[in-house]
Amino acid sequence: MLIVGELINTSRRPVREAVDRRDAAFIAAVARRQVEAGAGCLDVNCGTMGEREPEAMAWLVKVVREAAVPLCIDSPDPRALEAGLALAGHGRPLVNSLSAEAARFAAVLPLVRKYGAKVVALCMDDDGMPVTAGDRIAVVRRLVDDLTAAGVAPGDIYLDPLVKPVSVSDGAGMEVLETVRLVRAQWPEVHNICGLSNVSFGLPDRKTLNRVFMVQTMTAGMDAYILDTTDKTMMGLLYASRALLGQDPFCGGYIAAYRSGLYNN
Amino acid sequence: MLIVGELINTSRRPVREAVDRRDAAFIAAVARRQVEAGAGCLDVNCGTMGEREPEAMAWLVKVVREAAVPLCIDSPDPRALEAGLALAGHGRPLVNSLSAEAARFAAVLPLVRKYGAKVVALCMDDDGMPVTAGDRIAVVRRLVDDLTAAGVAPGDIYLDPLVKPVSVSDGAGMEVLETVRLVRAQWPEVHNICGLSNVSFGLPDRKTLNRVFMVQTMTAGMDAYILDTTDKTMMGLLYASRALLGQDPFCGGYIAAYRSGLYNN
Repeated sequence: MLIVGELINTSRRPVREAVDRRDAAFIAAVARRQVEAGAGCLDVNCGTMGEREPEAMAWLVKVVREAAVPLCIDSPDPRALEAGLALAGHGRPLVNSLSAEAARFAAVLPLVRKYGAKVVALCMDDDGMPVTAGDRIAVVRRLVDDLTAAGVAPGDIYLDPLVKPVSVSDGAGMEVLETVRLVRAQWPEVHNICGLSNVSFGLPDRKTLNRVFMVQTMTAGMDAYILDTTDKTMMGLLYASRALLGQDPFCGGYIAAYRSGLYNN
Repeated sequence: MLIVGELINTSRRPVREAVDRRDAAFIAAVARRQVEAGAGCLDVNCGTMGEREPEAMAWLVKVVREAAVPLCIDSPDPRALEAGLALAGHGRPLVNSLSAEAARFAAVLPLVRKYGAKVVALCMDDDGMPVTAGDRIAVVRRLVDDLTAAGVAPGDIYLDPLVKPVSVSDGAGMEVLETVRLVRAQWPEVHNICGLSNVSFGLPDRKTLNRVFMVQTMTAGMDAYILDTTDKTMMGLLYASRALLGQDPFCGGYIAAYRSGLYNN
């Protein structure tokens, strides 16, 4: 299970303001808090910075890497990815992301190889975002074939099925669950990752929906998430899920997390 | 989705005391509260009453049937089952339960037929409680074959896989999830039902584990639960699960439950 902390993102106003004033202490505290709450990796995203994104990425990475966990360098812009990857420091970084879109694949794959990174691969191609599980699996097959042909190990691939809002289509959640089950069955070494908040777009009480979708996708075989580890209710559900899925010998991680106050019920 | 309210049970002290003093107003209020909170059926269990169980069952059923939902007549004792079934009133009752144990099957099946009841069938036989999903499916096959041969419609069978504590065996939860998936695939008309509290026996914060196990089993295909509908957090997760699994057109039930305060987040 890989838990990527999502909070270092300039779309969040306090982070944006801290980046603007180069407030390293604030950023370092956000990073540390996420790791203390259970993050095994930290996402770094400054996509809202426009032209200054590569420069902001470099500064952010130098601050965040002090938290001593691998970083998830998150940008659609290869220049920003490289600015982060060149400085990522602790452990092997995760590139977030490439896709099966020809131009994006061609631009990002060389960075994955140059820096020996793991990679988040989005299930979309030049025809757009797939709708059904079958559409997604066709894109997954191409991604896995092309990445492994380029020398990326299957265990270094984190497939993101791309979650759509269930408010737009009743079947949006089920298509993702089915995709994850099919990936687990056909490519057991490949990981499945996702963010959770898209699924609840447009509905009330989004936190409950996001938490339930975490439990559902984990039941289907999802083994990596980009989420807010400081949401103790979410983390409680995650520890409980692992125990109930037999992924936590003698429920030791669950009991330890409970005793150390790592989650709320 | 069938939600059976579990609170009318004399193992709960306030209910036991109300039965002892024949306090119909108290029992009726517990029944009404569960229905208002979303129960579509009410379990009636007075198994702790010993020799007085059939008499207590008859009294309880006459009170609880006023809530105008079908009842789930819950006893290992065929005399108590019949005392309840004879008076069950509103709609078709659910018999809880028979099993593949020869004596119990032979004693309870005639009651199911006589009262045209639906039936909870426990996945156990004279060799005891099965451990693996494969063991359970062997018992399920026998139960479904024997019940349908006796004229019980597949859609009137509610299989209970029998949940064991994950504190005793790390695989206890997964075996149940796998059983439910296999039943759904092989007998799509047959229902899957369970209680939730056994899974968390011996662990801290049992409520969180029970809630997560509800979401997990629903993801695997469980479509009936015996639970406390007045647990608003549990009900919130249930409505959210249904919406995310595409079982709630346009998320209408989720939004209505949220607006009417039927759940907490």
